Amino acid sequence: MEIFKSLGEFRAWRDRLAEHEIKSGARLKMGFVPTMGALHEGHASLLRQSASDNEITILSIYVNPTQFNRPDDLAKYPRTTGQDLEIAHRCGVDAVLIPTASEDLYPDQYTFQIVEKEFSKILEGEHRPGHFEGMLTVVLKLLNVARASKAYFGEKDFQQLALVRGMAKAFFLQTEIVGCPTIRESDGLAMSSRNLRLSKSDRLIAPKLFSAMTEFSNLADARKVLEEIGFKVDYLVDHTHEGSTRRLVAASLGEVRLIDNVPVKGFNEGAAP
Amino acid sequence: MEIFKSLGEFRAWRDRLAEHEIKSGARLKMGFVPTMGALHEGHASLLRQSASDNEITILSIYVNPTQFNRPDDLAKYPRTTGQDLEIAHRCGVDAVLIPTASEDLYPDQYTFQIVEKEFSKILEGEHRPGHFEGMLTVVLKLLNVARASKAYFGEKDFQQLALVRGMAKAFFLQTEIVGCPTIRESDGLAMSSRNLRLSKSDRLIAPKLFSAMTEFSNLADARKVLEEIGFKVDYLVDHTHEGSTRRLVAASLGEVRLIDNVPVKGFNEGAAP
Repeated sequence: MEIFKSLGEFRAWRDRLAEHEIKSGARLKMGFVPTMGALHEGHASLLRQSASDNEITILSIYVNPTQFNRPDDLAKYPRTTGQDLEIAHRCGVDAVLIPTASEDLYPDQYTFQIVEKEFSKILEGEHRPGHFEGMLTVVLKLLNVARASKAYFGEKDFQQLALVRGMAKAFFLQTEIVGCPTIRESDGLAMSSRNLRLSKSDRLIAPKLFSAMTEFSNLADARKVLEEIGFKVDYLVDHTHEGSTRRLVAASLGEVRLIDNVPVKGFNEGAAP
Repeated sequence: MEIFKSLGEFRAWRDRLAEHEIKSGARLKMGFVPTMGALHEGHASLLRQSASDNEITILSIYVNPTQFNRPDDLAKYPRTTGQDLEIAHRCGVDAVLIPTASEDLYPDQYTFQIVEKEFSKILEGEHRPGHFEGMLTVVLKLLNVARASKAYFGEKDFQQLALVRGMAKAFFLQTEIVGCPTIRESDGLAMSSRNLRLSKSDRLIAPKLFSAMTEFSNLADARKVLEEIGFKVDYLVDHTHEGSTRRLVAASLGEVRLIDNVPVKGFNEGAAP
């Protein structure tokens, strides 16, 4: 497994792969999984999917400052690089890009941005101003650097996945965007790097986010239950996007904000075991 | 010369070229010249440069609605497709993309946009709100569709060239952006598709835009002369961008708005013969 801490070295490696494709007369299938590190079983499932679909799997780990709307959230975002590299190795990753200098990815000092005018402005976009601009901008940079055949994103970040798909379509990207199912703890809590920041008692309450979404058909009832047990609910709504309806929730326990979503039809799909 | 009026057919042709590269074991040099048609000698110089640098030259002709801030300017923008195709053929173009349906290039209905927060907000950006967002957005789409080794832009649209270069750097595009010198009529007027819209008497005055820029070292004097002979001057400034200083001007004669620029050092460079 190759590890690149400089974008320049990664790009040189990627160029050599392209040369190899031309020389060998055969295209390589390449999969790409962009992450912010603190890898968990959700990320591992994306990496394994990529390793199974492709000849080469590229992982990027970059805690992208421009997508954080709260400085404390950026400062406290978990960093577990040593463990991340072990997981990457176990999942069959061939190359890891860990850019250490933000100037590497932002030679323009973030003067160039991707903006989306509709779906990015509601739900997460409404509660985290600037988040999706930062996310889309860094994802476009990373997709262009990786030049993969497929890139893998979790359904847990539903709006992110939909917006990245929209961007790929709007800008005619060569990379196919693949969505993968949310991976849950045995108690139903959607895996998230931010779960590491939950207190012991909040960790016991956190799975109610999923159960409230799936057990109540009435959203007001679900919201009431969540608020009674200590959640501060940002939104809990059924939203129809491109023909399919999802139930989406964002709520905080103390300082830790969690999000989750499920399809509105088939509430039993993906329920906790 | 192949002519594609559907984006889908163009993309299929482009994919076949990529397959050919892999099969033949040799990369093709491809040049791309994106235009809004009404081709003149300025465009022809870009096409000839591309044909000389590359094995394949691609021309696109698309009057991009999102970069027009005035509906009348869009409506009156010259369309001369028959003549454009003759010029393309003479200049050695291999493929012409003329998308007829805006949904082809905007499957997202322009919800996704490229925004630049600094250089795009002054000069042309200040006088033509939304212009650079529309231009950068369509250029990124077209660059991704063409996937050329090099793309050619005229220095006459100085801010456009600088912003496209900045975008290519910020988003790690594979296409090298090549700037080509402004081509002028024998009387010094910078070639522009909008020159076709000048009245006979305004056409006689128009070259003063260039001569005033180059003959006066004092900007106030130059501006005064232009206003006296009937120009409405939007700006006439010396601007330093990335280490080099240009003199930039935008001014209208009647309904027709013209722009031009020269390097501030070496006023005699590029002077009218």
